[in-house]
Amino acid sequence: MFPDALIQQAETVLNRCRAAGIRLATAESCTGGLIIGCLTAVAGSSDVIEAGFITYANDAKENLLGVAPSVIRRHGAVSQEVVLEMARGALQNSSAGVVVAVSGIAGPGGGTAEKPVGLVHIAAMREDGHHLHCAPVFPGDRQSVRLQAVAMALSLIAEVLED
Amino acid sequence: MFPDALIQQAETVLNRCRAAGIRLATAESCTGGLIIGCLTAVAGSSDVIEAGFITYANDAKENLLGVAPSVIRRHGAVSQEVVLEMARGALQNSSAGVVVAVSGIAGPGGGTAEKPVGLVHIAAMREDGHHLHCAPVFPGDRQSVRLQAVAMALSLIAEVLED
Repeated sequence: MFPDALIQQAETVLNRCRAAGIRLATAESCTGGLIIGCLTAVAGSSDVIEAGFITYANDAKENLLGVAPSVIRRHGAVSQEVVLEMARGALQNSSAGVVVAVSGIAGPGGGTAEKPVGLVHIAAMREDGHHLHCAPVFPGDRQSVRLQAVAMALSLIAEVLED
Repeated sequence: MFPDALIQQAETVLNRCRAAGIRLATAESCTGGLIIGCLTAVAGSSDVIEAGFITYANDAKENLLGVAPSVIRRHGAVSQEVVLEMARGALQNSSAGVVVAVSGIAGPGGGTAEKPVGLVHIAAMREDGHHLHCAPVFPGDRQSVRLQAVAMALSLIAEVLED
């Protein structure tokens, strides 16, 4: 179901986590579970995958991950501030040593001049606080935006484990 | 990415939730986020979809959903008792009015004589406590078992909303 290239990326991430002896969690909004869905498509992933917090609604971001309502109000749910809070919340509420957090506008609705359809904020964070963030604007339709976000999220996890 | 038939099932579930004025959450183990991933593939699903608790590890089932360790010890993570506890936990820890919980053995490893590869326990529950449960043994490989579990989960949500 997932493209072969994504499964290969997932295998790389799983192998890096195994080599580092750490477990992984995801905090997903616009990808809606596809990152952890792709990682768990790989047989034997259960030794690495801890949990996924799929916080599609804003109150789920607040209740499951402890994102402050004021941060969402001030910066919007699709922002660097919110994905960093989501990442911290996933680390605090699981035994994972590395997490990835994603919030974006998959479309077709919901875009604005400042935050267009395709904008996705992604943050990967280790439990020592070291993290990477990016905010690409992906082209294409809803499915394409979501799959590109999964690919970028997997890349960012692999990268944050390298440093 | 998801088969058209699954997307159509997802649309049916979303429409029934809208008609009932309730929001939906998932609690997923072996499906690893694919149920909420499929539901959120539908544009405009954010008015219905609340959250997903992807509790792949046993300690995630305990910490995120409040499943009692003794229940997992006594019945195993793949059991009617555990999916019912997962469903209750998802209702308690979200503002959803209906939830679906899934725990199974997607394979290729992990099967036993009593609990073969392909066995998946699925429970759909409303906040009034009304629920449905089934435990099919799906044929096929890991991906096939997971996708059949997604389809059955979507059917069970639609059915529990009908009664």
